[in-house]
Amino acid sequence: MEVSPVYRQSDDSQQDRPAHPQVFLTGEAQKSDHLRAGPCVDFPVSVVLPAGGTGERTGLQTPKQFCPFLGRPLISYTIESFERVSWIQTIMVVVAKENIGFMMDIVQQFQHNKVRVVPGGSTRHRSICNGVMALGEEGVREQEKPAASSRPKVVIIHDAVRPFVDEDFLHKIAVAAKKQGAAGSIRPLVSTVIATTSEGYLDHSLERAKYRASEMPQGFRYDVIYQAYQRCTESDLEFGTECLHLALQYSGINAKLIDGPPTLWKVTYKRDLAAAESIIKETLSQTACLITGGLEAGVTLANVLQKAFGALDVELKVTPDLMGDNAMYLLKDWNFFQVSVDPSSLSEVEALLVALEAGNRVLLNPAVIIWMHLSVTAEPFTSMLAAESGALTGLAIKAKLRNILLYGIWLHQPQSLDRDF
Amino acid sequence: MEVSPVYRQSDDSQQDRPAHPQVFLTGEAQKSDHLRAGPCVDFPVSVVLPAGGTGERTGLQTPKQFCPFLGRPLISYTIESFERVSWIQTIMVVVAKENIGFMMDIVQQFQHNKVRVVPGGSTRHRSICNGVMALGEEGVREQEKPAASSRPKVVIIHDAVRPFVDEDFLHKIAVAAKKQGAAGSIRPLVSTVIATTSEGYLDHSLERAKYRASEMPQGFRYDVIYQAYQRCTESDLEFGTECLHLALQYSGINAKLIDGPPTLWKVTYKRDLAAAESIIKETLSQTACLITGGLEAGVTLANVLQKAFGALDVELKVTPDLMGDNAMYLLKDWNFFQVSVDPSSLSEVEALLVALEAGNRVLLNPAVIIWMHLSVTAEPFTSMLAAESGALTGLAIKAKLRNILLYGIWLHQPQSLDRDF
Repeated sequence: MEVSPVYRQSDDSQQDRPAHPQVFLTGEAQKSDHLRAGPCVDFPVSVVLPAGGTGERTGLQTPKQFCPFLGRPLISYTIESFERVSWIQTIMVVVAKENIGFMMDIVQQFQHNKVRVVPGGSTRHRSICNGVMALGEEGVREQEKPAASSRPKVVIIHDAVRPFVDEDFLHKIAVAAKKQGAAGSIRPLVSTVIATTSEGYLDHSLERAKYRASEMPQGFRYDVIYQAYQRCTESDLEFGTECLHLALQYSGINAKLIDGPPTLWKVTYKRDLAAAESIIKETLSQTACLITGGLEAGVTLANVLQKAFGALDVELKVTPDLMGDNAMYLLKDWNFFQVSVDPSSLSEVEALLVALEAGNRVLLNPAVIIWMHLSVTAEPFTSMLAAESGALTGLAIKAKLRNILLYGIWLHQPQSLDRDF
Repeated sequence: MEVSPVYRQSDDSQQDRPAHPQVFLTGEAQKSDHLRAGPCVDFPVSVVLPAGGTGERTGLQTPKQFCPFLGRPLISYTIESFERVSWIQTIMVVVAKENIGFMMDIVQQFQHNKVRVVPGGSTRHRSICNGVMALGEEGVREQEKPAASSRPKVVIIHDAVRPFVDEDFLHKIAVAAKKQGAAGSIRPLVSTVIATTSEGYLDHSLERAKYRASEMPQGFRYDVIYQAYQRCTESDLEFGTECLHLALQYSGINAKLIDGPPTLWKVTYKRDLAAAESIIKETLSQTACLITGGLEAGVTLANVLQKAFGALDVELKVTPDLMGDNAMYLLKDWNFFQVSVDPSSLSEVEALLVALEAGNRVLLNPAVIIWMHLSVTAEPFTSMLAAESGALTGLAIKAKLRNILLYGIWLHQPQSLDRDF
């Protein structure tokens, strides 16, 4: 492979292109831990995730990729999007030197297992370049094989501040990148784009139909992006923004462009944080699982709730228990209704808490459990409250520390259940 | 004024350019009701607010300009942005024929007093054209003077789905439009813009620094925009998107471009609704007013709260009462703390509720009142709760119907107030 004369190790400090970037191992890489199966690829694919932004445009002190949503930093959602995909190998996260420790803490706290962390450069392109080079070095250092044989075939470049990317779309990008050499995501332009004169007047406006916004992810054959970064100029590294442009200019590749979904947008301004949170919340609340406990009243309740939830576009699955095959609900849902008639025991809830924790899923997103107690006794409502609410509150406080939100609902009219809802 | 041969009344149905668009009077126009004073302009300025969108891109049934935020449709916030500006005369809202009744209800419910409603066309340009023509007709029909003398000097064109626009920026646009003939808002591009080949490959990427996103508001001298719409082609009306382009092509005016704030963005996708709501909530919660009731403990409490709120960037103003000059707080704030030591009376809260309602302000945004009861008796906490919480709850239920959220806080350690906070 040609090495550009600009790329010299002795120039590291000036040029910010480490020949042997320092790679921080953060977990057992390439351990596949995906929860769903999509189309597979038969060639090695890794990811470079630049996360060096300083948060200027959000007006916040915390860079936006580290802003917490429901107790978890934005970048952890982005990483999860890639870790769920079985055929993604390494996620090379590039962060500013001063944030490396913080990033390592995130990786450990949320048990990310495909991530490596590498220090960033002074511009976006320098950071991506560091990540691409580090992917090349990885093979040499770890497996003592010639670099070419262990490098990924395709590199996907994304942004830490675009937390929502689905497997099917990644698949399209990876396959097109392998075939064409480069592939990019595009979206329609939201605003008209205009050219300005140097004096600040309208020069002309572009015909919207002929242009697209270039978004992330983008995919490249490793040799294409490697060569582009080897050959590009200091000016490209300093002022350029578009990897597709480098692939065109320095590797002669016209990228295939693929229409992406609206969720590809980049968290840029403070308002986007609220937008991202709304999407995360919506995603978490699209399905729920009701455990009837084998009770007839539980089935009646499930039917009523299914209708109500249907109107809200929430899918409610119903199961008598979480034993055997039914344990799959523990892997798929974040929201549980546990129906109970036992006035004195919270054992079902306790079992559910243990099961959710065992799967380590609540590390990533909070789970919600609603314990629905159907009262079938003639005992007055208030005495029940006194007896049970204390126990439930104690359990809820402990559960919250483990990222599980536990609520209780007492229903005291079991005879008229189907009328009252 | 030249009338283009394309513009004929007999062609109305085909061409969708009403010569005498039907104007719905909705209130006492030009009544100035602004709450703050900014720089003024000495020439007549009116607004065209196209609101004909169908909500396709949000994926919602309700068009986004009518989506409610805190109980109030988005378009009502946009209208308020203009009504607060003393030198804005008429706001010509252009809506699809089927939504005219709905729009009139909004105008009535939120007591907008500068709004006229006019039916829209089949495209954005046809709708804006209708609004511009209606502003011209307005003078002739109402004042029986020659049109030229009563038409606005400058027309500001905006979007119903851009609810946040401040007076200072409108002033810049209006003044530049009068001087130059046309003025537009611009923002930096968030994504790189690329040109695509007809086969879906990258053709070239634009150098980001030379281009800008064209946003709203835009301002035009009435004669400039009128002539542009008179002379433009059917194809422009059908497929065009950019008023600045029409002004350039048909009136020979290179618009002055002015950098706008990030809040100019357009509510386009469903996620933008959450973003808009977060901005509205932030705006409403930036200031609060604490009424000490002349109590020493109230002043101590105010000092403690001022420190705490300062850390949250919320300004807390303190006043002994809302009499005389202090009544101005009723016009400026949405959040009130009423301090009280009287264990049995809610009269101060009742007076505050009456005052807020009398000003009609709570029509536009919900107000929050927090009644802080400092207990100075040795009476047990629980007996107090029983006595007062019922009365407060009753008051809160009634207040909520009038868009006022009332809460109560009981503080039972008045002696150690400055230690406990």
